[in-house]
Amino acid sequence: MAEEWIKVKIADLFDVVVKVFKELGVPEEDAGIIADVLIAADRRGISSHGVARLRRYVNGIKQGVMMAKTEITYVKETPVSLVVDGGGGMGQVVAYRTMEKCIKKARENFICLATIRNSNHYGIAGYYSMMALKEGLIGISMTNAAPLVIPTFGKDAVLGTNPISVAVPAKEERPYVLDMATSTVPRGKLEVYNRMGKKIPLMWATDENGIPTDDPARVLKNLLERRGGGLLPLGGAEELTGGHKGYGLALLVDIFSGVFSSGAWGTDVYGKKGQPANVCHFLGAISPEAFVGLEEISSNMDNIIRMLKNAPKAPGKDRIYIHGEKEFEKEEENTEEVPLYYKVYQDIKEICSDLGLEFKL
Amino acid sequence: MAEEWIKVKIADLFDVVVKVFKELGVPEEDAGIIADVLIAADRRGISSHGVARLRRYVNGIKQGVMMAKTEITYVKETPVSLVVDGGGGMGQVVAYRTMEKCIKKARENFICLATIRNSNHYGIAGYYSMMALKEGLIGISMTNAAPLVIPTFGKDAVLGTNPISVAVPAKEERPYVLDMATSTVPRGKLEVYNRMGKKIPLMWATDENGIPTDDPARVLKNLLERRGGGLLPLGGAEELTGGHKGYGLALLVDIFSGVFSSGAWGTDVYGKKGQPANVCHFLGAISPEAFVGLEEISSNMDNIIRMLKNAPKAPGKDRIYIHGEKEFEKEEENTEEVPLYYKVYQDIKEICSDLGLEFKL
Repeated sequence: MAEEWIKVKIADLFDVVVKVFKELGVPEEDAGIIADVLIAADRRGISSHGVARLRRYVNGIKQGVMMAKTEITYVKETPVSLVVDGGGGMGQVVAYRTMEKCIKKARENFICLATIRNSNHYGIAGYYSMMALKEGLIGISMTNAAPLVIPTFGKDAVLGTNPISVAVPAKEERPYVLDMATSTVPRGKLEVYNRMGKKIPLMWATDENGIPTDDPARVLKNLLERRGGGLLPLGGAEELTGGHKGYGLALLVDIFSGVFSSGAWGTDVYGKKGQPANVCHFLGAISPEAFVGLEEISSNMDNIIRMLKNAPKAPGKDRIYIHGEKEFEKEEENTEEVPLYYKVYQDIKEICSDLGLEFKL
Repeated sequence: MAEEWIKVKIADLFDVVVKVFKELGVPEEDAGIIADVLIAADRRGISSHGVARLRRYVNGIKQGVMMAKTEITYVKETPVSLVVDGGGGMGQVVAYRTMEKCIKKARENFICLATIRNSNHYGIAGYYSMMALKEGLIGISMTNAAPLVIPTFGKDAVLGTNPISVAVPAKEERPYVLDMATSTVPRGKLEVYNRMGKKIPLMWATDENGIPTDDPARVLKNLLERRGGGLLPLGGAEELTGGHKGYGLALLVDIFSGVFSSGAWGTDVYGKKGQPANVCHFLGAISPEAFVGLEEISSNMDNIIRMLKNAPKAPGKDRIYIHGEKEFEKEEENTEEVPLYYKVYQDIKEICSDLGLEFKL
């Protein structure tokens, strides 16, 4: 396995990614934002959402379904909220700029919640919730996505994996950063199992007839060809195991993102090939001063985190994790370099060659 | 089964419950609020959270761990937020009054989020999120609870079943009312299986050694005697099935309720017998006018609800439900009368007799 991963310098990778986007007409500053979001995922060990996705963004821009120049419109603004139209631009840029504005407004008015339509895939949800952390604020980030998830008692995928991220600052401990797909697993996990020739647990997905299956290849093929079946919500296929709750959370994200912005939801996200995807997000920043204040909240956070970490462990387990902890540890490992899967490395090389760009990694 | 349930007039049940609380020193208006919250649960088919709990509230007041007279203090107030101290009063009254204030503030300033400490068990979370619906607003309600849930890789119960409720108005369709414990199931479900002598699925709970078990009696005994083990978060014991996500949501609720209010969290909720429980809540009201407005949002909601309900069904299923739908149908069945389990009926009779009150049901 080890030789299948190639370590590259983060600074070099950043330069390459920026060069690719600039070549495609993305303004330099925006290209820097996209590169930072993608590489942050690789650094945090979420390689499925990192530069591995470069090809999809490149294709999106080339096919005209993503606008290289992101033009954001503030459709509505109150002291504590925003309705944003992303103009079909780059999801990372839309979300980054909106979160910047949310942070500014939350500093002035304690809270800002933003619903965003007409955007694109924005990378890891946690990037934007964590932007708030740097300012001592609480961050919220959600997005709808391509329909891959079946509702409880349904046969076909009509909802996205719709992730939820919430970040809360601590004092001496690492912050709490929840960043979870509302499906049991995201599609990338099935791809990994498929690559390894492994069967998947029955709580992950259903076949084209709507029956839980252990065959990842079959599910991936069905999703690609829209033949029915798909990923199961958190909790699986049955109410008995709480599947209706995962479904309810996926729907919640679609409501906050697509419904509140009058954007798109369900099967209308990525509804037509060659047309803008109309991905919708929901972002929020909340000042701790709206509640008991940063000093108390961050010290309470230390306390609850320590209570959890010091709790008795299950047999064979030596550690209870806080959400975000594993990713922070990865990030601290990957300060100068980041590992790329060899196929991803090759793919970036090819993208550069196609665009006539020098490839130095 | 049928004869085990006794139908009673809602108006009579309301009078009895109000009389009981008045006798214990609860002001008449407050007694009416508590009765309405409890009976709403019975009407909606959530009998575990209905008048079946009357005994616990009666004992709480008698033992002095719940204050009959609820004195609420607004510790902090901004235009869009509140920090509330419930003074150890009745949870329903604390939450009802706070939500009333949230609604008023959301009407004026678009959003109001409230974190509440030093309260008690408040009944069904959905009651308060639905208060916002009546005003054409979006409602949020969460609460921490007695430690019954184990964190992923933990052995003992250190978090509550910490429910999340979010309510969003629709136009012609019924509103979306998510109201879910963040554990796979609440404790009441184990009690039902135990009564019926049935085994429970392995995703529900662990034994005193932290191993998933199918024996509900063992889990209930362990929880009562704090011998270890407990309920599993939504997603079960393993990361493979997403258990860390349910755990993350339970933690989220504890942070918003206990940490943001500097109240209590984890094992400090119901931390000492005979002492105030220090249950903490989080409530919110958001005006649709913060986003694209009620007219558009409620009609978008009709659209997404119909998309889901019309989606193809899994084999053997003829209906896809929206969250809250089953409960609304029950509520519409139970307009004049509500069914009480015979043991609950007997228990209320006994409570009245102990207090020297006339029992007419």
